[in-house]
This record gives sequence, structure tokens and C-alpha cells, in this order.
Amino acid sequence: MITHISPTGSMNLLSQIEVERLKKTASGNLYQLYRNCTLAVLNSGSHTDNSKELLDKYLSFDVDVIRRARGIKLELTNPPEQAFVDGEIIKGLQEHLSAVLRDIVYVNMHLAGAAPSALTNTAHMTNLVFGILRNAGALSVGVEPNLIVCWGGHSINAVEYQYTREVGNELGLRELNICTGCGPGAMEGPMKGAAIGHAKQRYEHPRYLGLTEPSIIAAEPPNPIVNELVIMPDIEKRLEAFVRLGHGIVIFPGGAGTAEELLYILGIMMHPDNADQPMPIILTGPKESEDYFRSLDAFIGDTLGEEGQKHYQIVIDDPAEVARIMKQSMQKVRQHRKDVGDSYCYNWSLNIESDFQQPFAPTHANMAKLDLHLEQPKQNLAANLRRVFSGIVAGNVKSEGIVEIEKHGPYLIDGDVNLMQKMDVLLQDFVVQHRMKLPGGSAYEPCYRIANTTK
Amino acid sequence: MITHISPTGSMNLLSQIEVERLKKTASGNLYQLYRNCTLAVLNSGSHTDNSKELLDKYLSFDVDVIRRARGIKLELTNPPEQAFVDGEIIKGLQEHLSAVLRDIVYVNMHLAGAAPSALTNTAHMTNLVFGILRNAGALSVGVEPNLIVCWGGHSINAVEYQYTREVGNELGLRELNICTGCGPGAMEGPMKGAAIGHAKQRYEHPRYLGLTEPSIIAAEPPNPIVNELVIMPDIEKRLEAFVRLGHGIVIFPGGAGTAEELLYILGIMMHPDNADQPMPIILTGPKESEDYFRSLDAFIGDTLGEEGQKHYQIVIDDPAEVARIMKQSMQKVRQHRKDVGDSYCYNWSLNIESDFQQPFAPTHANMAKLDLHLEQPKQNLAANLRRVFSGIVAGNVKSEGIVEIEKHGPYLIDGDVNLMQKMDVLLQDFVVQHRMKLPGGSAYEPCYRIANTTK
Amino acid sequence: MITHISPTGSMNLLSQIEVERLKKTASGNLYQLYRNCTLAVLNSGSHTDNSKELLDKYLSFDVDVIRRARGIKLELTNPPEQAFVDGEIIKGLQEHLSAVLRDIVYVNMHLAGAAPSALTNTAHMTNLVFGILRNAGALSVGVEPNLIVCWGGHSINAVEYQYTREVGNELGLRELNICTGCGPGAMEGPMKGAAIGHAKQRYEHPRYLGLTEPSIIAAEPPNPIVNELVIMPDIEKRLEAFVRLGHGIVIFPGGAGTAEELLYILGIMMHPDNADQPMPIILTGPKESEDYFRSLDAFIGDTLGEEGQKHYQIVIDDPAEVARIMKQSMQKVRQHRKDVGDSYCYNWSLNIESDFQQPFAPTHANMAKLDLHLEQPKQNLAANLRRVFSGIVAGNVKSEGIVEIEKHGPYLIDGDVNLMQKMDVLLQDFVVQHRMKLPGGSAYEPCYRIANTTK
Amino acid sequence: MITHISPTGSMNLLSQIEVERLKKTASGNLYQLYRNCTLAVLNSGSHTDNSKELLDKYLSFDVDVIRRARGIKLELTNPPEQAFVDGEIIKGLQEHLSAVLRDIVYVNMHLAGAAPSALTNTAHMTNLVFGILRNAGALSVGVEPNLIVCWGGHSINAVEYQYTREVGNELGLRELNICTGCGPGAMEGPMKGAAIGHAKQRYEHPRYLGLTEPSIIAAEPPNPIVNELVIMPDIEKRLEAFVRLGHGIVIFPGGAGTAEELLYILGIMMHPDNADQPMPIILTGPKESEDYFRSLDAFIGDTLGEEGQKHYQIVIDDPAEVARIMKQSMQKVRQHRKDVGDSYCYNWSLNIESDFQQPFAPTHANMAKLDLHLEQPKQNLAANLRRVFSGIVAGNVKSEGIVEIEKHGPYLIDGDVNLMQKMDVLLQDFVVQHRMKLPGGSAYEPCYRIANTTK
Repeated sequence: MITHISPTGSMNLLSQIEVERLKKTASGNLYQLYRNCTLAVLNSGSHTDNSKELLDKYLSFDVDVIRRARGIKLELTNPPEQAFVDGEIIKGLQEHLSAVLRDIVYVNMHLAGAAPSALTNTAHMTNLVFGILRNAGALSVGVEPNLIVCWGGHSINAVEYQYTREVGNELGLRELNICTGCGPGAMEGPMKGAAIGHAKQRYEHPRYLGLTEPSIIAAEPPNPIVNELVIMPDIEKRLEAFVRLGHGIVIFPGGAGTAEELLYILGIMMHPDNADQPMPIILTGPKESEDYFRSLDAFIGDTLGEEGQKHYQIVIDDPAEVARIMKQSMQKVRQHRKDVGDSYCYNWSLNIESDFQQPFAPTHANMAKLDLHLEQPKQNLAANLRRVFSGIVAGNVKSEGIVEIEKHGPYLIDGDVNLMQKMDVLLQDFVVQHRMKLPGGSAYEPCYRIANTTK
Repeated sequence: MITHISPTGSMNLLSQIEVERLKKTASGNLYQLYRNCTLAVLNSGSHTDNSKELLDKYLSFDVDVIRRARGIKLELTNPPEQAFVDGEIIKGLQEHLSAVLRDIVYVNMHLAGAAPSALTNTAHMTNLVFGILRNAGALSVGVEPNLIVCWGGHSINAVEYQYTREVGNELGLRELNICTGCGPGAMEGPMKGAAIGHAKQRYEHPRYLGLTEPSIIAAEPPNPIVNELVIMPDIEKRLEAFVRLGHGIVIFPGGAGTAEELLYILGIMMHPDNADQPMPIILTGPKESEDYFRSLDAFIGDTLGEEGQKHYQIVIDDPAEVARIMKQSMQKVRQHRKDVGDSYCYNWSLNIESDFQQPFAPTHANMAKLDLHLEQPKQNLAANLRRVFSGIVAGNVKSEGIVEIEKHGPYLIDGDVNLMQKMDVLLQDFVVQHRMKLPGGSAYEPCYRIANTTK
Repeated sequence: MITHISPTGSMNLLSQIEVERLKKTASGNLYQLYRNCTLAVLNSGSHTDNSKELLDKYLSFDVDVIRRARGIKLELTNPPEQAFVDGEIIKGLQEHLSAVLRDIVYVNMHLAGAAPSALTNTAHMTNLVFGILRNAGALSVGVEPNLIVCWGGHSINAVEYQYTREVGNELGLRELNICTGCGPGAMEGPMKGAAIGHAKQRYEHPRYLGLTEPSIIAAEPPNPIVNELVIMPDIEKRLEAFVRLGHGIVIFPGGAGTAEELLYILGIMMHPDNADQPMPIILTGPKESEDYFRSLDAFIGDTLGEEGQKHYQIVIDDPAEVARIMKQSMQKVRQHRKDVGDSYCYNWSLNIESDFQQPFAPTHANMAKLDLHLEQPKQNLAANLRRVFSGIVAGNVKSEGIVEIEKHGPYLIDGDVNLMQKMDVLLQDFVVQHRMKLPGGSAYEPCYRIANTTK
Repeated sequence: MITHISPTGSMNLLSQIEVERLKKTASGNLYQLYRNCTLAVLNSGSHTDNSKELLDKYLSFDVDVIRRARGIKLELTNPPEQAFVDGEIIKGLQEHLSAVLRDIVYVNMHLAGAAPSALTNTAHMTNLVFGILRNAGALSVGVEPNLIVCWGGHSINAVEYQYTREVGNELGLRELNICTGCGPGAMEGPMKGAAIGHAKQRYEHPRYLGLTEPSIIAAEPPNPIVNELVIMPDIEKRLEAFVRLGHGIVIFPGGAGTAEELLYILGIMMHPDNADQPMPIILTGPKESEDYFRSLDAFIGDTLGEEGQKHYQIVIDDPAEVARIMKQSMQKVRQHRKDVGDSYCYNWSLNIESDFQQPFAPTHANMAKLDLHLEQPKQNLAANLRRVFSGIVAGNVKSEGIVEIEKHGPYLIDGDVNLMQKMDVLLQDFVVQHRMKLPGGSAYEPCYRIANTTK
């Protein structure tokens, strides 16, 4: 089956050179990247969290960018059926196709020619994240702070899911917008809830902003509710985008990915340069999930100490309270940005150390040599712990990680005995609570092995 | 507590005379009507289906229309709390307040001065319905037929409710709009579902049109998802509005009100003048509700015969099929309107006999003298059966009906033994299936008594 | 030639009854009124100021309102060619056709049924003017005072015309809107100038509001720049609309019509109830026209005295100053409306006595019996003088006036010798300055004769 | 005097790096370029055509880009007064300031890093022109061909100017858009005329697109009517932008710049690859200017022959006919683009040889060594003649050209005697007709000397 789709927005306007580089016949692996992201987007609503499975299922899928008098057309061969209604593509997905095209063209064309230094220098990386978001239309001037980042697991239970919707509804009723990683579970619930809250308020510019990256998009395809989709080049730039865009962060129950996110933001907030940053962070869930937060909090206390714990608060079973705290915090964020002359829509003044910006490749070698001891500056420890969880996410759901694990067996995670035991407990909890895997599949087979433990 | 609300849209522009007539101090009972409708709207989301209960609960509620430099303000005294978020009224409800103001002013001012003949003459009544809808902005020129009326019970079970959402989602994915009676249950589900479907399609002009009337609005307050609300003066004009506005009708499981609606549309469709009218009517529900439709179908077969049955089809457990049939029918409706030169947005050429237009006051006397025999023209029988169910709805949930029943006991419904038995069976089914009452309350106490039966 | 035009906006939605009353075959003279206004609008840009000439030229012109699936169509037979570009009607004129339809339907349908008292009672007349303007969309809530009424002659010279454009440009640069009588000359120049000023400011909601009436529209067809056109039923309601809508008044050189307008507003401003009304009134023109204003000022001084003169200021040859004064005055107007709780868009609190509201029919008898003596309250004198000039306008350019004059010869204007002489001087000036007639025609033949003078 | 201006649109979003490079303190001459273009834009409406004069007049003018919470602010020191009304900048000029910022940032940042080959290779130059226009929002997908390029002199007489307005009005009435070089005279008249025509048609997306370049903008500051302004890096890219954007070309009387433009488009149209390109070109003016076109036509005939002449037609004194031809041609342009699969908004398939793309620096040396002989391919001759006139424009009005002439005296233009004589005649005509200089200044002092002539 062959279908032609018009991209929306400015992506109808590609130059001849841009079109040629995306062709199957062009040199380089840009086509493959583009094709896989496109396939992932069309697979919206599917229920697998295994990127490789998805890619294997649609081997005959193909996409070709062709020029026509009225602009660019995407020619899709054998696309997934669920992207269509009575033969017409769902418009939300059509927009996502355009977003994929836009971001891949931008990142690879406009910036490929840049000097190598631009890719490692801290200031340049922050400018690159800015450039991608600006080109995606994700930055708007003159809008008051109102964007709440919601993090949490893709595999939460029904009670937790309903809770995320309620928090979304309360945020929406207060005209706050939502930004998530755009997969299922805690990334979807707050958006759906906010959509109802926004509709009740006739809110005119609702944002359901999904930030993803090529290696995770297939495992967490964006829901069609996502009305702004941005594909960042890697997890580190995605995380940087979250914390420079967001004006507040809500963390729902989750697994390794959520732990990675929490360690990332704590590591940054603990930096002395960021002492004045008014960033509200709330860990929240229904009554039934209280224990989860207590053990997570304990793990943070044991590793990063009170210095780490003081940056968040835990709210149990009170969606309206979560939303009220966020709403009130927006005033402080606004005032701070005004005082320091920083943008409302991109937090330039937040200091992010190179440690948190440099891409971490989750190979067995890199995982094994992580410095996992308690006797190091808290901030470095946070950076290294972040990498552990990043690696586990890759081994669980990203296709390159899965291939690695298939080849070499589980990652070895080695370090201080005491720390290893705490980590083991946390990860065991994740497994028991089914936070590592979507339900319905086979039992979770860990992609890691912790040294110095009985396991 | 006193709050000031600005109405939205053109209602900010009332003349001095219009404002004065709405004052508490003005002669006539317009203020009381206005105040009660306003209270009902503010009570959105409450779960009682007893108008009188609601009105009794907020005796100290008051509304006053006052003029200010920037337009009209509504001063509310002691409004229900749930209409507000952190002290601000929910904007959807603010719009509903304006709709109440708009329609009550229009009907009572502009038309009160009309000659008495205008109120009984068939052509004039149809013009009045048109005038109210036009003034409400519910008619738009140049829009292709796309409005699906959804009827069904306010008290359906969870499986049925979920089914109405799924049908709504499928209708929304096909860019069809929704019109309902705007209460809970089957009046709410299709709108919520369509809102998700529309969002996926980035549908720009979604309509969730609620048609209500002063005597029912308190029992069925509009959900904030309703983005167009029209208060028709009585049930007969409300029904006429449904069938002249709608381009197709979906009927979900329901009770007496749903039966009234079905008999109304069948009585009209059976008129020879309407033989060519392409009006798709679908009775649908989940697998679990199939029996309901079979017995309703049997009742229609027994009373109106195949002539009646041929106007609808029954679709069980297939939301996408319902939506596909509706979508395809829109072409036929469009072509028919074009052929006869009729408006796309108001079906002028549908013939509605005076029998179906004249208001029926559900007093004990009127109920008792209804002509309920099988040996009369089918169309007359339909009109009379419609009145029976209309009366039962009044006795169940409308405040004037409840007061009547409290005073004089249940209505007596008398007629042909055979017919009475069939009706008894149907009504018993409604009671057993909890279709006469919202769950959670006490057992249903019938507001009627059927003659010639063992009851 | 037969053409079909779709009306714009809500006028596509006429009821069956409304359409029928506009038919040629309907009883009453509504068709003739509608047809003549339609013809006048299509004649935009023609250069005659004689209504009768225009109507005589297009005897075969016809308009029929017909219903189609997508709404109403206007069928035009033999319309004036200049309304079309390559066979397509100019959209500005299409809008004007819709305005004619809208206002004639509104006034004659909705209000014809009103009780007779509503047509003479002061409060009801003010409500009627409000109702017409509201229905026309000419009232908007929430907009700050910014509407400048510009009065002046339809027959001014090139230097004066250029001056009115410059004033318009300066008003437009300050984001002020323009309202005029919508004919040529001083009614057109300020709009054209403001259009340039608004374009420079990218002003988003420019208003070029033209207020006319059926008896003058043929002599002064609206320019297509007019983007809001309202047809008031008669000159008195048109004048009331000007002063209740406008937030400031600029008066350019003009003839009898301009004198009528000046006397009208002075008569109202001199009423004690209006003492606090902050209504800026500026008489302005180029250096070359200074004498004109000096003699007009003298006439006002001689008749209404300083009490009258104090309500206006004269600004010579300074367009920017005129605009600056108006801009600054808007703050005072705003504050006053706020203080007294009056609407920003309709000056309810301005008192207009019955004398200024009652239609004056310019028959020979009515003209002859006007009370024209200096020994009467100033305000009554203003009302009577206003009627004199109103009659002269009718005799000059309105078709019913022209017919009267053709039949009975010039009106006799009789009164106090002293007053008659002053009036004679003023009218002579108007004639000499070609303010009574568009240039290019034959010499002006007065439609009046002043008693007690040498003429 | 210091003022702060917010740029409009996306320019509020500059990255830290982009802002720093525009600072006065940054290395390179970007600041100077930016400052001068900004000054030119603020000088809109001034009447000098000498860039140097303007720059000398405002030596104390300064601009600084500063970051604030709500985005970027431009801090202007001692800006020209006429850019302000009552202390507020005219919004049209505020938009132009933003356009300057946008284009200078885009060209210098995004493209400075490009490989050198990208700056000389034909395909890359065409991509660069595309990139600038896309970034400026000057390209829109899905819009039918409707953009008419109007070329002609900045120094035309009043009759000619009025004629350009009438042509503009007729183009506007047919909903065609206007693109010019955005200076005074024939670059302004068609826009003003079209603005009136568009207003009459309520045309919703009128475009008055001005294409300029840093070296000419000071001599020809854009009128505030220009609602899209693009600053191309040099005259060659500006010319390429004109012919790839435009769907038709109207040429009014003009001087050296107009001759350059005509030779440019003829040289391109004469290329065999462009034989099928349906590009309507009309030379037009009032009756009084007929001789001008006859002698221009003769010069083309003598140099490029009938092959050159066949690409245009001459229409004298008939604005409506010019507009009708253009309107009809749009269908052919549309069909051609569709047939060859080319974009409606950017003519990729028009072949432009390197000769016409490479920047020509008008130094004395370069001017002297131009190959000006009739015995060369016509297309080469057109390219070389184009350069002659380009040099003369520089010597007349561009600041670097003026400085050159001040230092070294007039350019020597040398070549074939016969050709030199024809050129001499043409240039003499331009001088006599005052087409080389705005009126009101001193007599024109030629910036060139033609060899082999009696002069």
C-alpha cells in the first residue's frame, strides 16, 4: 500500500539539497534514522515497549520525500494501519510526521556543518538545544511561565494512571500546560487529564508538548494528543530541554527512566550556581503508591543526603494541591526570571555542568567503569547514578541497547558495596512493581547485574 | 459570598429595557425562570436528577444583572462552589451563564410582543425555533451536514457509558459533531469521546451542542464540555430543534425520555410528506445491552408496525460501524438538501404536524384523557404515546411534575388493555434496569399507574 | 444581465417569513425601499448627488431574495456595471448589500410588531437605535473609546479634501477609528487617510463606519472603504446613532447638512443634564477655509451665544493637533463612562430631548410653520434651526424632497427678520462656496426662499 | 534620546551567541552593517537618494540588542524623529527593524559557517536565496501564483507616479499581490494603489513585499506600507529573489536601476532552458511616457534583437488591461508549475547562469574591463550590459560607490563604438528625463564617462 501525505506547516518548504539528503539513495545513515522515527510515529497507540520488536514488524515500511507543485509530499509504503481512519491519516499523526521531518532536517543539515567544538562546548550545546526548540516553534515570547514537566513510568498501574489524569485535569483547570516524554502511562495521563481541564476552561492555547529522541521514540510513540512534538538528538539534550523549558516538575511513580530524570534534576539543582533557581519539584501519587515514594526518598537520602532531598516535596493523594502549588510557584519563577533578566521560555541561567551534557553511550565497557562510590562530591555521584539508570533504560527498551544485551549479556554494575545494596533494593522494587516492563508481556529479564550482591 | 461574572459574547450588550425586565423587582416571573436556569448551569457536574432537590438546596442563591462601563456584569450571591477553581469561575460555565441570559432574553423579549397566532400556528412555531437557534449562533451557513444527535438515558451503566464514549470517539475521528440533551450518561459520553477524537484530528470547529429547556435543566445540568448551549422554551420546541438541526440520530439505551424521543422522530418520519427525507437513525449499544433494543424494537413493532421499524437500524457493539454509517449518510443528506433547495443547517422541509408541536402539559387530567388505543392512525398513536412518556419524565425529574405527583399521587395511564400491557412491560424493564433514576439514590417510586394491569 | 450574490455574515440565515416579506410580490412598500437602497449601494463611486437621477437611470434594476441549500442568494437584474471587476462583484459592495438586507429586515420585521408607543417614547427610541446598532455588530464590549465622528460637506474643494485625508492619516496613526455619513467629500477623505495611517500601524481592527438612511443613501452611496455600514430608518435616528456611538466629533467645512449636524450636537450639549459629558468637538480645515469657520462661529454666536460656542474649538491647518486633542480626550471620555457606569460603546447617559428625536417631515407646511425667533430657549432655537437645514438637505438631494420642490416650488422659511438675515448670509455663503452641490453640474437652484429678505 | 523597541515575531528569540555577535564590541563589521540598515529603516519617508548623506546626518545614532525576561529589546540612541508618533514607534517600522535583525542574523550566522564552495556554486546560491526567503516567511505553500513584481524608477514624475497607483489599484482589485524594491516612486505607487484595491475587496492576505539589500536600503528606505521586508545580501541575490518569487513582472519608466533589471530578466529568459517558462513581462506607463518605452525598446532591439524583444509587451495608458493580462497569465504559470512539478512559491526550474549570480563589485577596474562588444552571444552581452547599469546605480546612490567616485572620478565605460553610442543616447535620455536623481537636488553629475563618444 502506498499513501501520500502532505506535511503540515513550514516543512512543506524544503530546499532541493535538504530533500536529496533524506533520500534512501543518499550517502550516510540519515535515511535510516528518518525512516525509523517516521515508523515510530505512525505506530502511535501500539502497546509494545520494545523498539526492536516494532522495527522488526514493519520491515517493508518505506518513506520517500518527493517534491510537488504545492510543496513536499511524503510517500509512505506499507505504513501501520492504525494511523488511518477510513483510509485518511489521523491529522495529529500527520503533524508528528512533519515534526520528525523538521527536527531531523534541522539537526542534521543546519548543524552538521558546524565546527566540532560546537558539539562538545557547554555553551554551544545549550545553544543547540535552544536552536532545535526555536526551530520547532516550542519557544514563545511574551507567554507567562506555565509549562509543567511531568515525569513518570510508562508502565504504571490503573490506579496510578487515573491519578495522573486527575493531576492533569487540575493543572488544566488552572491553565497550566503539560510537557512529558510523550510515551504511555505517566507521560500520557497528565495530557489527557489536562485536555479535559483545558476544554472546561476554553483554554485557547493548550500545549501538550512531547520531547523524545530517536532511540526511544519507537518504544514510546507519541500519543496523538501531543500537539507539539520535538525529537531531540539524544537523551542528554532531551533532559536539558526538559529543565530549560519547564517551569515546574511533577514526578509520578516510575522505573529506571524516572530515576534517571530525578537524579538529573537533583544533580543540577544541587550545584551552588543554581541555589536561587525557584524550580518547584513535586513527587506525587495516589495513596496506594505512598510506599514507592518513601523508598525512593530514602535512596536519595542515603546517597545525596538532605541537600538532595530539600529540592522536592512529596504530596500524596491530592491532585488539586499539586496543581495549586505549581500555580503559585509560577509567580516566583516569573519574578526570578525578571530579576535576572532571563527569558520566560528558556532558562538560560540554569547552570548545567558538562558531566550532565556529554552523551553517555551505554556500552558494557562504559557501564562497568562508572565511578560508583559514595565518597565523591554529591553532584558527581548524582551524575554517575544518572548514567547507571540511563544504561538500564537503554538495555530495557532502546533497540541499540537490546542488541548489545543480546550479544553480551547483562551489563555489570560495580561499585561501593553499600551503594550497590541500596541500588539493588531499589531496582528489585521496580521489578516487583512491574515498573520495568509494560504489563501483558513475559516476566522481566534484567538487563543488568549488580556486583557485590547476592544476586 | 458575592461574585461578579462578565457574560461572554454579545450578551454583554443588553439594552436598558432588557436589563430591567430581568430584575428581581420586575413584574412577571421572568426573574424566577432566569434565576433557576442560572443556578442549574452553575450546578454542572452535580449528581442529582431531581430538579426540586437542587432548587431547595440553594434557596439563598440570587443573581442580579447590572450595567457597567465595560458591559453587563452578573452578580451572583451564594453560587455553588463547584463552579469555581481557586475562586475563579470555570470558563465553560461562564459561557453557559451567558447562553441562559441570551435565550431567556430573546424568547421573552423579542417574541413576547408577538401576536398570539404566532405561538400556535405551525409555520410560526418553526420560525420561532429557527429564530432562537439563529440568535444563539447555532446555525452556520456553508457548513456541510455533520451534526449527529445522540439520544439516550441519563442513568446508564458503566459498560454502556464507556460504549457511548467509544461511539463519540469514532464520530469525532470522522469529524462529525455532536448534539445531545446535555445531561449526564448517554448525553455526556458521546461528547467526551468526540472531544478526544476531534483532538486527534486537530478538528478546528468541534461542536458539542446541548439543547435543553428550563424545566429539565436543573435535573440535567450541562457538562462544561458543552461548547454551545441553547435553552429552548419547552420540550416540544427542543425536540423540533433536534430534528431540524440534526443530520443523523444515534439512540443509546435509555428510559422514558429516550422512548419519548424515539416515538417523536418515528411519528414524524412516518408522515408521507417526509418519505424522501434521508435521516439515518441508529439504535446502538454494547453486546450486554442487546436485549434492551430487542424489546424496544418489539414494542415499536407491536404498536407502530413495520412502517415504524423501517426507519431505524440496530447496530450492536460496533462503534466504528455506527460512525461509518453516519459519515456515509451525510452525503445523501447533503444531496437531498441541495436537490430540494433546503438549508444545510436547518431542515425547513421536514414536515412536523401540529400534534407534535403543541406543548403538552403533564397534568393528571391531561395524562388521564390521552387516547391510547391501537385502532388509530399510526402517526396519531405515535403522538399520543410520545405524550405518555413525556409525562413520565416530568413526574420523575421536572420540578413542576414532582410537585404535581406529591400533591395528587401517580398519574393514571389508561387505554386499550393490550397496549397497556405492552407499555407496562416496557416500563417495568426501565425500572429493573435502573433507567428511571440515577444510581445511588433510593429505589424508584413510579410516578404513574397503568390502568388495566395487575399493578 | 442577471447575477447571483451571496450575502455575507449572518444574513445568509433568513427565515421563510423574512424572505417572503422582501419579495416584489409581498404587500406593502418594503420591496421598493429594499430595492432602492440596494441600487444605491451598487452605485458606489458614482458622482451624482441627486437621488432621483440615480433611481431614474436604473429603472430596469431588480433584486430578488431566493433560498438555496447553502443559504440565501440575491438575484440582481441589470445592476450598475461599476460594482463589478471582470464580472465579479467587489467584495466591499457585497458586504454593503448584506448590510442593507440586514438593517431593513431588522427594522421592519422585528420592530414593526412593536406597540405604537415604542415608536414615540424617548426611551424606546433610544432602545431602537441601540437595537439596530447591536444587530449590525456596530457595538463591541471591552473596546476603549476610540471612535471619531467626522462631519462635513459632500462637496468640498480639492484643498479641503486633501486636508480631510491628512486629518484621517493622523487619526489613523493614533489608532483612532472613523465614523462618517459615508458619502463623498468630507465623509470619504478621513476614511481614506485613516486607512493609510492604520496600515502603517498594522492596526488590526480598523473601523470605517458609515451611518446612512434610506432617503440619502442614493445621493451619498457608501465608498467601498466603508467596512461597516448601517442604514438607520431616518435622519433623526442616524443623528442619535452618531452622538451615542462617537467619542469625539470633527467637523470639516460643509453646507446645509453640516450645519444641521452642528446645530444638533450643540442643542444636545447645551442641555443642563449633559453638562458633565466630555465630548470633544473640533471645527477644522486648511488655512484657505479659515473664513468659513469664522462666519459659522459668528452665526452660532449670534444665535446660540457663548453657551453654544463653548462646546467646540476651532483648529486651523494642523491635522496632527486635531488628532492629538482627540487622542487625549479619549482618556476623559473613558473615565467619565467609568465614573457614571455607562457603556464605552453606547452613550446611554447622554440626554436627548424628544424635540431632537421626533422625525421632522420636510413638507412645505412644516417648513413654513417652524418657530424661528431668537426669543426662545436656546435649546429650542437649536432644534428649530436644525429642522430648517434638515429641510434644505431634503430639497437639495433627497428624492422625496426633490419631488416636493418640483411640485410646489421652493420652501418658504419665515421668522424673525434679524435671524432671517443671518441665515440668508450663511446660506448665500454656502452657495457661493459650492457647498450645496457637487461641482460639474449646473448652477445651484435654491430649494428655499427666505422671507423678510431682499431675495 | 534613548528608546527601547521590542522586535516582532520570532526575532524576540535570539540565542546568546547571536546576540553577542551583533554587539558593537564584537569583532568583525557586522555591527556596522546592522546599525546602518537599522538607521535606513527608521528613515522611512525621508527624501534623499544619497546613502552617504543619510549616514552622515545621524552619526550619533546607535543600536544595541539587549536581553530581557520577555525577550530581546532594541535600544536605540538618537533615532530619527519621523519614525515615531507621539513618542511611540510606528508599528510598520518596528516590523522592518525586526526584518533587518532577522535577515542579518540569518545570513551572517547560519551561513557564515558554510563551506566556501557553497558561496560560489550555482545550486548553493539558489539554495541560499531560498533559505533567506523561507526564514523570512516570504514563501508559503498552497497559495496560487499571484505575486506581481513591479520595477521602475525611484525618481518618476507626478503623472507617472499616479499611473503606477492606478495599475496597483487594478492589480489589487484582482487580488494580486505586489513585490518591489521598496523605495519611493515606482516602487511605492503600485503598493499604495493595491492597498486601496485590496481594501475594496476585503482581501485578507495582502502582500506588499519589499526586497532590498544593505548597500541600497539607505537610499531607498522602505515605505511603512511594505508589510514584508527582506534584506538580501547583495544585488545579485536580490534580483534572483525577484525572478524566483514573482509570477509576473511589470516595468514602469525608470533609470539605470530599471535598465539593470530589464537586462537581467531578458538575459535569463533568452536562455534556451527557460524557453517554456511562462513569465509575463509588461512595460507600461501613461501616454506621456510612451516615447521612453519606444527608445528603450529600440535599444533592446539594437543590442539583444528580436529574441530579446519577444519576451515583453508594451501597454500604454491602460492600467486595467495590464492587470487583466497579469491575472490571466497566472493560470498559465500555475499550470506550468504543476506540469513540471515545481513549487508555486519559488521557481526552482528557472535556470540562472553563474554570470548572473556572481556578485559584481563596481570598482573602476571592474567597470573598465567589462566586455562590451556586440559580437558575443546575446546572453553574455545581456549579462555585461546588466553590470554596466549596476555600476552606474552604485556610483549614483550607494555609499561605497559614491566614495569610489569621490576618490577616483567617474567610471570609464569602454567598448564597441557602435554600442557605446547607443548606450550614450539612452543614458543621456535618463539624465534629461531626471531619472537619475530625485527632483529638488542639484543637477545630475554623471558618475561615468563613456569612451569613444564625443563626451
